[in-house]
Amino acid sequence: MKQETIDRIRKFSVDRDWDQFHSPANLAKSIAIEAGELLECFQWNDENYDLEHVKQELADVIVYCQDMLDKLGLDADEIVNKKMDQNEKKYPIEKAKGRADKYNQL
Amino acid sequence: MKQETIDRIRKFSVDRDWDQFHSPANLAKSIAIEAGELLECFQWNDENYDLEHVKQELADVIVYCQDMLDKLGLDADEIVNKKMDQNEKKYPIEKAKGRADKYNQL
Amino acid sequence: MKQETIDRIRKFSVDRDWDQFHSPANLAKSIAIEAGELLECFQWNDENYDLEHVKQELADVIVYCQDMLDKLGLDADEIVNKKMDQNEKKYPIEKAKGRADKYNQL
Amino acid sequence: MKQETIDRIRKFSVDRDWDQFHSPANLAKSIAIEAGELLECFQWNDENYDLEHVKQELADVIVYCQDMLDKLGLDADEIVNKKMDQNEKKYPIEKAKGRADKYNQL
Repeated sequence: MKQETIDRIRKFSVDRDWDQFHSPANLAKSIAIEAGELLECFQWNDENYDLEHVKQELADVIVYCQDMLDKLGLDADEIVNKKMDQNEKKYPIEKAKGRADKYNQL
Repeated sequence: MKQETIDRIRKFSVDRDWDQFHSPANLAKSIAIEAGELLECFQWNDENYDLEHVKQELADVIVYCQDMLDKLGLDADEIVNKKMDQNEKKYPIEKAKGRADKYNQL
Repeated sequence: MKQETIDRIRKFSVDRDWDQFHSPANLAKSIAIEAGELLECFQWNDENYDLEHVKQELADVIVYCQDMLDKLGLDADEIVNKKMDQNEKKYPIEKAKGRADKYNQL
Repeated sequence: MKQETIDRIRKFSVDRDWDQFHSPANLAKSIAIEAGELLECFQWNDENYDLEHVKQELADVIVYCQDMLDKLGLDADEIVNKKMDQNEKKYPIEKAKGRADKYNQL
């Protein structure tokens, strides 16, 4: 996201004095709760979903992820690149290509 | 995230021919699954968490969110800003300040 | 479940002195975490699942639900029947038959 | 739960012709969605929860667990006792007493 959007998310919490509620544990709960609401868009049907609703729920997950990055002083690019280093090792192209198996079953 | 990181996430799936598994419904499931793993870092204790583990699980959630944005052709800034427009209306500063109540109970 | 099974779940926690960790909030997290693990059995494929794995994860969810009932002094039949009263009103047969829509869209 | 309650849950679906939606994958999603709603009761505060709301959401999780048992032809006592056999081995009393660590860290 652009710095401007990140700042807006930050300002939203500061303005409402919500930092006190944003413990890492509460934010982890919030991400799981919103992930459940996103999943609800696909509860009974994988194909026919309401795109506008999906956008809103996905945005909620992203906002709480940003709040957690912010709270823990983390940089998204840094933690994601570190994880991608691991993923690329766990799932070598020649083994994982076209297969949805978990790394320990490749 | 930087375009470079987004491109890396995209390339990871393309190289493994995993796009076939990345239906929006499967990605919604994946976000919920990883959100559960992130929550597990705080299962029995809100304060003493393993920061390295938290970083990995948060990165997993972010990667699948990016996969979903990618799959649906969405722009993170656009959907987040649209949601923040709504959040700012639902939670006016004067009503929401210092309170963790849901908007319909303010 | 039979009283014998319920007693075994209770004894398991008592023997390990785990009651101290079983706050309602921690049990709610635990149910969500195990629900995520159950969902993982269907992450990339709705049809081909490992039944033994499904049984284990479903059992984990059920055990933590029982722990929560126990912790809050609740009776499963009572809360389920009360909820079914609501469900039957929210989803009248003539409106809901054969439709997966939410009650507010019927 | 009593057979009578189990039968009521079963009848509710049959009457509405909802069996067609109750694939194991959809029920796994439903359990995760309801687990998220239960977790929401504790989103910002572990101590002050609305007990009536908790009862409703816990009942929803239990109902979908029963639907999944029913769909897969499983017996709750059987799968739970089998899992408790494993749990008792993974967490020997002398090692696990008073500790919330995962079995691989005991």
